[in-house]
Amino acid sequence: MRVYNFSAGPSMLPLEVLDKVSKGMSDYGGSGMSVMEMSHRSKPYEAINAETEELLRELMHIPSDYDVLFVQGGATNQFSAVPLNIGTASRKADYAVTGNFAKKAYEEGSKFLDARCVASSEDKNFTYVPELTADMLRPDADYAHICYNNTIFGTRYSAVPDTGKVPLVADVSSCILGQNIDVGKFALLYAGAQKNMGPAGVTAVIVKHELTARADERCPVMLRYDNQVKNKSLYNTPPCFPTYVVCEVLRYLKALGGIDAMEQINERKAGKLYEYIDNSDFYSNPVQKEFRSIMNVPFVSPSKELDALFVAEAEKNGLISLKGHRLVGGMRASIYNAMPEAGVDKLIQFMDEFKKAHK
Amino acid sequence: MRVYNFSAGPSMLPLEVLDKVSKGMSDYGGSGMSVMEMSHRSKPYEAINAETEELLRELMHIPSDYDVLFVQGGATNQFSAVPLNIGTASRKADYAVTGNFAKKAYEEGSKFLDARCVASSEDKNFTYVPELTADMLRPDADYAHICYNNTIFGTRYSAVPDTGKVPLVADVSSCILGQNIDVGKFALLYAGAQKNMGPAGVTAVIVKHELTARADERCPVMLRYDNQVKNKSLYNTPPCFPTYVVCEVLRYLKALGGIDAMEQINERKAGKLYEYIDNSDFYSNPVQKEFRSIMNVPFVSPSKELDALFVAEAEKNGLISLKGHRLVGGMRASIYNAMPEAGVDKLIQFMDEFKKAHK
Repeated sequence: MRVYNFSAGPSMLPLEVLDKVSKGMSDYGGSGMSVMEMSHRSKPYEAINAETEELLRELMHIPSDYDVLFVQGGATNQFSAVPLNIGTASRKADYAVTGNFAKKAYEEGSKFLDARCVASSEDKNFTYVPELTADMLRPDADYAHICYNNTIFGTRYSAVPDTGKVPLVADVSSCILGQNIDVGKFALLYAGAQKNMGPAGVTAVIVKHELTARADERCPVMLRYDNQVKNKSLYNTPPCFPTYVVCEVLRYLKALGGIDAMEQINERKAGKLYEYIDNSDFYSNPVQKEFRSIMNVPFVSPSKELDALFVAEAEKNGLISLKGHRLVGGMRASIYNAMPEAGVDKLIQFMDEFKKAHK
Repeated sequence: MRVYNFSAGPSMLPLEVLDKVSKGMSDYGGSGMSVMEMSHRSKPYEAINAETEELLRELMHIPSDYDVLFVQGGATNQFSAVPLNIGTASRKADYAVTGNFAKKAYEEGSKFLDARCVASSEDKNFTYVPELTADMLRPDADYAHICYNNTIFGTRYSAVPDTGKVPLVADVSSCILGQNIDVGKFALLYAGAQKNMGPAGVTAVIVKHELTARADERCPVMLRYDNQVKNKSLYNTPPCFPTYVVCEVLRYLKALGGIDAMEQINERKAGKLYEYIDNSDFYSNPVQKEFRSIMNVPFVSPSKELDALFVAEAEKNGLISLKGHRLVGGMRASIYNAMPEAGVDKLIQFMDEFKKAHK
């Protein structure tokens, strides 16, 4: 029996997508092969690769002066690729530290250039998102870096910061496709697929073309954007199957009505969960309301013992992976695109039963 | 209908593996989830990750002082990772250039250290494998690098070169699991999965533990071996699904009798194909016999026009991806582990019919 999986990533995929993937497992579209078996230089795979890019461009309204790349290594690999590719003019970059991954990006950046932390919410265990404005930045910084949605802490920017003339770079791993993102306000966006886009193993990079031609000469070849741009993400053998599943997810999302429709559903899912928590006088969420993520919802019960019991009992009820990250404790419900509204309803129902039993 | 796919990679997978993968697509082993949906920190996925490593250790008889890593980026990413991790003592490394990828490895190495080409077969378009002995190497070189089997040119080392005290590093992407490899003779082996091991998107690195603790301080975090060793290849979200399929391929190979059994089958498959070519007075293979690969078999007909016709007609007969690499021309049959002997038989039968029709 299928479970409701609240994992922060890898996470649920639409059952329709899994069924379609399964059906083509030994013969995709009459090719006589699995997508896993296809040469990445073959016509059917090149069609998948091209369609994946086109669908992402269409769904996210990506302007034509941006390149769209599908690469390996996860968002973590972009922590290195960003400074090595675009941090090469002044070799200065300014970072906002709003959580664990934002901090890791900053630390990795420091290996390659003069990185400065210009805003941080570490003072309150990352329960809010600090202001970031153009006058906080060095005017000659090669870029300003943010993490748009903080998976572990359940926060997000309520609006895109205005960084003036400093190019804005964002890790959007945990919110891409889940909410509208105005791509034109960013110089570069990147996202691991394993939350809203598909399985782990492929990472999308959306980057202004003019920024792709200035890589550090010691940048490892697989991290170079120019190389992937020139080869349409097929410089070497790409992660074909994960990319194909992303393609199926994008097809599914398009048929559903695109990101506008998805965002409405996500707002509704998150809204009812936060509302229940806020009104429960048993559960609580520590995040300042204006910065609450609609993707990741951390919460606690009145005690650590009850938290542990909650996670264990939930699992017996088919509600999986609700344990919070060790940096936060308690519970966390990641309710990405593929989490059905019925899953959130069942979670709230379980929370209520648990509250009545243990209050 | 399933085709016989002679692609150089990604390439065929055993139908039994595809069927098993398909069956677990929306509920793997009673977990209620696809492997694609599982948290990489979950018990079922950690079990897959551990089993994949154990099976590779068992099948390849990997000594216990070697680490086994599953990483992203393909063999090409290792062209950078090798010098950045182990080329950091003398910062000198010696390369044998026996084909396209061996050359790319050498060129990428040159970005990070004093790389020298000490042996090359480029003079005869890589149709043989040049000698490599300890006295050809700089005694203080951090490593000597070879490509064990050259996918494009259809050559392989007939024996492991003796590099004396200089640690030997080999790209074994196109022969791993297809023939016995004496791991103890190497300091480091690496292989993209997409030929003999599974789908594209995961790369195995087998490295002597003592070599993993000397990475360059500017090595990107995802390329650092020490980091992956410490985290059992789970530093960040790994390519879970490709790794899982590798696990299924290894289970299948073990049940078949392991690498000894597989190597016998592969010798037989390659043997009959070479024998037919050599006796055909129509087709020819340019490689010196002692260096012929048992994985990749390039051949030509009497003319370029007939080559093109051959590839097109073969495809109509369900024999796919036989076009040779542009650097060699003609045809190439990649007959990795998952190519059934019946596929080779059908190819030979087709070759014979084509010969009779066009001689």
